[in-house]
Amino acid sequence: MSVQADTRLRRLPERGSQDIELACSIIDQARICHVGFTLEEQPYVVPMALARDVHDILLHGSVVSRLMTNLAGGLSCCVTVTHLDGLVLARSAFNSSMNYRSLMVFGHAVQVTEEQEKRQGLDLLVEHLAPGRVADVRPSTRKEVNATSLLRLPIETFSIKSRNGPPGDPKSDLDEPAWAGVIPLAVTEGKPEAAPNLAPGIRFPDYLAPKN
Amino acid sequence: MSVQADTRLRRLPERGSQDIELACSIIDQARICHVGFTLEEQPYVVPMALARDVHDILLHGSVVSRLMTNLAGGLSCCVTVTHLDGLVLARSAFNSSMNYRSLMVFGHAVQVTEEQEKRQGLDLLVEHLAPGRVADVRPSTRKEVNATSLLRLPIETFSIKSRNGPPGDPKSDLDEPAWAGVIPLAVTEGKPEAAPNLAPGIRFPDYLAPKN
Repeated sequence: MSVQADTRLRRLPERGSQDIELACSIIDQARICHVGFTLEEQPYVVPMALARDVHDILLHGSVVSRLMTNLAGGLSCCVTVTHLDGLVLARSAFNSSMNYRSLMVFGHAVQVTEEQEKRQGLDLLVEHLAPGRVADVRPSTRKEVNATSLLRLPIETFSIKSRNGPPGDPKSDLDEPAWAGVIPLAVTEGKPEAAPNLAPGIRFPDYLAPKN
Repeated sequence: MSVQADTRLRRLPERGSQDIELACSIIDQARICHVGFTLEEQPYVVPMALARDVHDILLHGSVVSRLMTNLAGGLSCCVTVTHLDGLVLARSAFNSSMNYRSLMVFGHAVQVTEEQEKRQGLDLLVEHLAPGRVADVRPSTRKEVNATSLLRLPIETFSIKSRNGPPGDPKSDLDEPAWAGVIPLAVTEGKPEAAPNLAPGIRFPDYLAPKN
């Protein structure tokens, strides 16, 4: 584990943490991450699904994806997971902020090639987004597994930044007339939309019911 | 405008678009973006607030932030804005997907130094998250404006990817017994939490009322 990235970027150090358990919880509560990498001196940031297997981040994509091929080839990457938890409205624009939790994991991904390990990893990606789903869908065919690339990125070199709590106005602003406080934000699930070609009699399963 | 990044990454081309108006709407509906850049061959992806001024993305941060200094110095960057709109549950894991809209803007940011232009840009950042807020808070002091760095990134070279609609199961899977459809996702605002030191009599203003 290293905080080299932090000191180099000089982001607010008091918001730092190196807690692996906190890193895992940030991943577990996220549906997507943003994967950063550099090709021919051009940075790219691509949103991707993710899951966690103990202390590895799992990513997947098509085997014909140039991105997956590059990442599997040992391209240096940064996987960032962000939860925006609220708008922090101070009495001034200057002291206004956001409540958030953000994890940056740095490293090199490794391709999973062994079929059984790959199937388990792909199942984790499904279960991450929809716990209970693997037991309900047909098993993937060997052709489908072969068409999918699975990568592991160890959660070893990482940096966590977060802010929470009310605005931090200076005393000199406390008499200002503007409302101050936090507007919480969260990702919530809407009413499920059944596929137009869903066979009659197939009901929405309990395991997919929203937890929010 | 260019789609060079697309062809280079070979992401699904049928999901591409070069519509500047769509790019603007993706920015306008977002509260944060993910900024990617490379320092000493290490990619970084950092979440940041954003706003739009015509066809520029506006970013801001502390003048002592090494990130802002590097970006202002002409570091190549990629700003990605992602809306995760839903989980797409097909009858198989393989055909399951996500509905999303994602914009990648590539380029070099330019620092805004003229005070009036800077004040207008900072106001846009406040209004982006909380329309009506600028009229309610005290004006920023010159010291506060000087302590803040404001950057413009032109929305010129960009790539849009999106997916929407129901799952695309092959005919051979339509008799599978699993439920199929979309679970919509959205960022929603929770009940406002007034600052503990809010003066009695200051009420939550109408302009901050949730639009969701």
